[in-house]
Amino acid sequence: MACGLLSRRVASSLRPCLGLTATGYRQVSQTAANIVEEAEFDGPCMKTEVPGPISRSLSKQLEKVQNVIQVNFFCDYEESRGNYLVDVDGNRMLDVYTQIASIPIGYNHPALTKVMADPSNLGTFVNRPALGMLPPGKFPEKLFDGLMSVAPKGFSRVQTMACGSCANENAYKSIFIWYRNKQRGTSQPTPEEERTSVINQVPGCPDLTLLSFMGGFHGRTLGCLATTHTKAIQKLDVPSFDWPIAPYPKLKYPLDQFERENAQEEARCLEEVEDLIEKWGKKGRPVAGIVIEPIQAEGGDNHASFDFFRKLRGIAKKHGSAFLVDEVQTGGGSTGKFWAHQHWGLDDPADMVSFSKKMLTGGYFYKDDFQADKPFRIFNTWLGDHTKNMFLTEVIKVIRTENLLEEVKKSGKVMLQGLYDLQAKYPHLLSRARGIGTFCAVDVRDEATRNDLILKARNKGVVLGGCGNQSIRFRPALVFKERHAHLFLDIFNDAIAELK
Amino acid sequence: MACGLLSRRVASSLRPCLGLTATGYRQVSQTAANIVEEAEFDGPCMKTEVPGPISRSLSKQLEKVQNVIQVNFFCDYEESRGNYLVDVDGNRMLDVYTQIASIPIGYNHPALTKVMADPSNLGTFVNRPALGMLPPGKFPEKLFDGLMSVAPKGFSRVQTMACGSCANENAYKSIFIWYRNKQRGTSQPTPEEERTSVINQVPGCPDLTLLSFMGGFHGRTLGCLATTHTKAIQKLDVPSFDWPIAPYPKLKYPLDQFERENAQEEARCLEEVEDLIEKWGKKGRPVAGIVIEPIQAEGGDNHASFDFFRKLRGIAKKHGSAFLVDEVQTGGGSTGKFWAHQHWGLDDPADMVSFSKKMLTGGYFYKDDFQADKPFRIFNTWLGDHTKNMFLTEVIKVIRTENLLEEVKKSGKVMLQGLYDLQAKYPHLLSRARGIGTFCAVDVRDEATRNDLILKARNKGVVLGGCGNQSIRFRPALVFKERHAHLFLDIFNDAIAELK
Repeated sequence: MACGLLSRRVASSLRPCLGLTATGYRQVSQTAANIVEEAEFDGPCMKTEVPGPISRSLSKQLEKVQNVIQVNFFCDYEESRGNYLVDVDGNRMLDVYTQIASIPIGYNHPALTKVMADPSNLGTFVNRPALGMLPPGKFPEKLFDGLMSVAPKGFSRVQTMACGSCANENAYKSIFIWYRNKQRGTSQPTPEEERTSVINQVPGCPDLTLLSFMGGFHGRTLGCLATTHTKAIQKLDVPSFDWPIAPYPKLKYPLDQFERENAQEEARCLEEVEDLIEKWGKKGRPVAGIVIEPIQAEGGDNHASFDFFRKLRGIAKKHGSAFLVDEVQTGGGSTGKFWAHQHWGLDDPADMVSFSKKMLTGGYFYKDDFQADKPFRIFNTWLGDHTKNMFLTEVIKVIRTENLLEEVKKSGKVMLQGLYDLQAKYPHLLSRARGIGTFCAVDVRDEATRNDLILKARNKGVVLGGCGNQSIRFRPALVFKERHAHLFLDIFNDAIAELK
Repeated sequence: MACGLLSRRVASSLRPCLGLTATGYRQVSQTAANIVEEAEFDGPCMKTEVPGPISRSLSKQLEKVQNVIQVNFFCDYEESRGNYLVDVDGNRMLDVYTQIASIPIGYNHPALTKVMADPSNLGTFVNRPALGMLPPGKFPEKLFDGLMSVAPKGFSRVQTMACGSCANENAYKSIFIWYRNKQRGTSQPTPEEERTSVINQVPGCPDLTLLSFMGGFHGRTLGCLATTHTKAIQKLDVPSFDWPIAPYPKLKYPLDQFERENAQEEARCLEEVEDLIEKWGKKGRPVAGIVIEPIQAEGGDNHASFDFFRKLRGIAKKHGSAFLVDEVQTGGGSTGKFWAHQHWGLDDPADMVSFSKKMLTGGYFYKDDFQADKPFRIFNTWLGDHTKNMFLTEVIKVIRTENLLEEVKKSGKVMLQGLYDLQAKYPHLLSRARGIGTFCAVDVRDEATRNDLILKARNKGVVLGGCGNQSIRFRPALVFKERHAHLFLDIFNDAIAELK
């Protein structure tokens, strides 16, 4: 099977570098107003090892003032185009990681550069508004044209925030406020509550909890971190909240071949969730909300069935806990639907949905009940960045006009089939290929081999990222087409073939 | 005294609106490359009540999708200039609040619009990098030209973050990591610590604490919120950490007239700090760090003497607690020095200094000891926004070439003297005028009168903000000159005169 794909293999690292003007792929990108031609490179082009000498020299400079252990290489964002990230040494790589899943429609899409060229946008870039107090006149319009136009069914409200962590932190606060209002039967606190809240004591700061899942990742600020359970390095030495943590189903892939076993595993986890809610309720530390990702991403691309999520949502409702779906990594289209939870097929899938990354702005959709009736309960200086809303509006237009959700389904199919083929070809190295849309992953024999494979692929011109202990996650932009999937698979095969 | 100032009073609300081309103030703003002429309006110009009909109509639209209780009015950021904020109804107001103290050099400064016009910056705006992994080639240079060029003495390292809360959250984490490394004598955790950290339990998530002060404000995410003690509305219903809270000195103003009493009050608070550190240490929940603002801003513009801070720093050092100075609101020049803590006159004033607001990017300076020796301990997808670093570099150049710290001292002097004069003229209404540079405040009789005065001033063309229970805080941009201070005082006097 793999041979079919691989027959079109090209010796990427030897191929002469072709520029924008070469006879490469051309795609037509149509925005609302006019048709523009978007030029993309026709393949990777490697000139040095990565990081190259210029990157290494910049790293030495940066090292003087901050931690550079995590720096992969330095980039030339002006020269990058579409699916191709160009580094400062002139290496051009097919980007299947996209700044940790946060570039929605590729590099330098003309629809976005147009936002910069519009003089009527200048003021918003140069003078950052305190959006909660002094929003720009165009703010409501941009929210309606942008975020609200992709609001999941059932959501009429949205709050922007600067990043994914701030989104979740504030969603958590909204859940706690909502839950306490329910408990006390009024939004009017007692004087005792007011007094004690300022000094971090009950009843003003109540002993409520959030239920999260092993392997879940929801951010790194202290509130979010209490619901993140991925790697020790992210949590070690930081004080936390003692909140309930449920097991996340450990499923066998491909899901459709292990339905019965997986259903049993999911039932076990759901039972544990319900036990935890009851147990913590009895302890006087009730579960105000449940937070979960539709696919655990940072934790290792762990999937659960749509049925699992439907039942979990039912449990939350039954026990009066809010249900928050964290779509920071899954949202924005890469599963082939705009929101991953839309695959579940539920009319009422959640109380809140948080987002960031490919949405460019952080924030969360919420139901009416979750809006505080007093000012300054959910607030900060900037409440996001309106320039991100301006870009997002264009991104959404492009997704529609270029029909990108359909493209994602097509390229995702090529990608997943290619991964199945590769794991059949290299069973001692690859396993558990899985994915929805282009939101795919595969496991590698062990952590060291995984890391080695990522570096080998990079030197052949493909940027990849890891997740979990031994997985590689694939997070291309939405403009990643079938031809890019084939190209990626070819190069990935070459890199695997070099592994011992 | 007030008469001297007020003799130049102008009937601002009746004055015809003069545009940019009128014979108004002109100032020459010289950037590194060339000289540009910056035009500013020559006074407020009010056409409607604020919020006007267009603002009210936009509020109705926005209300459909989010909380608008805190929205003051909608702005026309394209039309705003220098110290003047223009709203969507065409009202032009002298801005003495500047988006909650976050506009450094006024609206639409030509040095900033130039950043937008430079095509080599386009890629960074359009493709947001994951700065910790894939920084742009120009990132080190911009850090050196920008943030590091204003690093307080003793700091050789800086970490950018998206906002003030994220800055403090990560500064707190760095403190906890540093403290645990000290405690265990190595940065190598035990297997038990690694295992327990993932499930929020000791010893992996240790029972360390941070000491903060009553009236302090450090942000609204859950970690920051545990050190924020200003208003109930900000904390109510949100679970928190039980951490030590010290009293903040309640001083009498003007400080130089009550030196002896104030010194006694400060000694009492310092004693309590030391008691708390010892008490919590004995409980097995040691104070890993102390966090404090040089002037408590949101909490009511509460000052303490430079001597208080010098002694507090000594106590932190004596007990092995980190000392974090939160300069989110005070930093960036409005006290007449770039950092407010530079007034203290200490060679070693802090271990970390956090910033945001007028610095445009969030982040913190830190000492070498506070850098983790492993990757991904302090990390998130974006780690700030490089476009803010680009703007900041220009802001710093403008502060230097326009000599703005000196201008702040001059206009601050006019402002504070004017406030002294006004409180002498209206002793039943105003009290406790205080300030350093233009970072000034005054107390109003009670909360209702304070709020009324802010609205009255707004309708006369001056934007103000409150803080604490009954204070007004003045937070003009650094381009607020003596003439603006006189103009503000005139209008403020008119508004006070209308109070019952």
